Amino acid sequence: MDGFDFNITIVGLGLIGGSYAMALKELKPKNLWAVDIDKEAIEIAQRKGIIDKGYTDVKVPLKDSDIIILCVYPALMTKFIKENMQFFKKGAIITDVAGTKETLIKEINRFLRKDLDFIGGHPMAGREYKGLSFASKDIFVGANYILTPTPYNKKENIALIEKIVKGIGCKNIMKISAKKHDEIMAYTSQLPHIMAAALMKGVKEETHLFVAGSFRDATRVARLNGRLWADLLIDNQENTIEKIEEFEEYVGSIKNAIINKDHEELETIFEDARIKREEFIKKCQH
Amino acid sequence: MDGFDFNITIVGLGLIGGSYAMALKELKPKNLWAVDIDKEAIEIAQRKGIIDKGYTDVKVPLKDSDIIILCVYPALMTKFIKENMQFFKKGAIITDVAGTKETLIKEINRFLRKDLDFIGGHPMAGREYKGLSFASKDIFVGANYILTPTPYNKKENIALIEKIVKGIGCKNIMKISAKKHDEIMAYTSQLPHIMAAALMKGVKEETHLFVAGSFRDATRVARLNGRLWADLLIDNQENTIEKIEEFEEYVGSIKNAIINKDHEELETIFEDARIKREEFIKKCQH
Repeated sequence: MDGFDFNITIVGLGLIGGSYAMALKELKPKNLWAVDIDKEAIEIAQRKGIIDKGYTDVKVPLKDSDIIILCVYPALMTKFIKENMQFFKKGAIITDVAGTKETLIKEINRFLRKDLDFIGGHPMAGREYKGLSFASKDIFVGANYILTPTPYNKKENIALIEKIVKGIGCKNIMKISAKKHDEIMAYTSQLPHIMAAALMKGVKEETHLFVAGSFRDATRVARLNGRLWADLLIDNQENTIEKIEEFEEYVGSIKNAIINKDHEELETIFEDARIKREEFIKKCQH
Repeated sequence: MDGFDFNITIVGLGLIGGSYAMALKELKPKNLWAVDIDKEAIEIAQRKGIIDKGYTDVKVPLKDSDIIILCVYPALMTKFIKENMQFFKKGAIITDVAGTKETLIKEINRFLRKDLDFIGGHPMAGREYKGLSFASKDIFVGANYILTPTPYNKKENIALIEKIVKGIGCKNIMKISAKKHDEIMAYTSQLPHIMAAALMKGVKEETHLFVAGSFRDATRVARLNGRLWADLLIDNQENTIEKIEEFEEYVGSIKNAIINKDHEELETIFEDARIKREEFIKKCQH
């Protein structure tokens, strides 16, 4: 396989699958196919030239696909591979975009055909909308992308996925264990989404007249895809609970300082936050 | 006083004071003055034409000022009025921009000269930076602005402040009691700032490589001005604690649903958040 001279199939033409297809198209793979149960999504994707051809029947594209990118709900990934195991092309590489990794990879490697290679992936990109109509090739530009390779993965296959990820515009590719991935995501992704949802709970009829940017920004991701996030949080239960409890502790220490009218302590807490945030955002921008 | 034919003095040339001056300049008041203890800020403001003239000696501009806008730290407002009471022009209108109102207004009205009129104001505008160099006349454009008038205020004075607020570009002017203001702000402003600070606490050396927009947005305002926020939270102690506890309860219910692996409950919570957020942001944009 030279350059991007292989057949790629995207499974699931939602926000991420659609965006992935758009971004991959620019790399000119031999064929870019898609599978979806939604005929309309396929028709739209074909008409817009996002994919070369789409299928509701998985078998057809799978037997000739060198790379398969699973962009379905996390809970459906294992099921998809299991049910279609016999149709995969010999030596095919399968990757995914799920926001949790440990359970998924363990399960898949338990039954995966020996010639196939599953490499866990997670683009740290998204939008607060779902569906193909919000897809854009630009969502990957400058984004972080995490790969969670295992000793089962072939080095050249990992390198190929990395090449694709760079190709669609991602900035940092981090290779870490699935376990580490899930620990980190509980904090950097699941926690802010939980906070945003919890913050929305108190919104009333007139609240919009009394907000500034702080509230709008803090609740941006509260426009949650409920099914997806329920999947992720339950799958990453242990880490998420731990991070929620750490967060509760921090909120508690601020609360105590307010109760004690401890101006100095509050200033210290906020100064720390300010300095951390400044350093953090500087690093994000590099 | 016809049109904007009066003398205005801004007290405190920080982010908000500086921005206020810039926006007011466009309305062409008779004179636009400023008071600050920082000579450099005054020099810069004069040189850039943000103000007509600045003073470190309060007395000079105060005796001829029809309107005084206090843009200093909340804890300094009362002190400023008390110490300079004798210098205010007869019948002058004083307003402020503090993020808490009830205590402040009660205290001020306790000793304010009978001919003076203090009208509490709070522009729901800001930035995660402090100081004159980040000031911009645009921060008020489209923003919400809250006024907390009391029976002591003259109708025509309230109308004049409203005219100014509209003039600098604010969209909604809400007139509510100081008590109501503080209750609402504990939720729409103080809570998101506390959350942002608490969320930063767990940031490590490498965190920036594992974040997407959700984390960045949720922590934007963690770049806090510690002194200002310590002032605000302590001043609005009771309401803030109440809102933190409501928030803790919501987070707790999400936590329980995760512990119970209650997919349906999580989906319901997130669907509710999504619908609320969609309605909310639609209203914000109108």
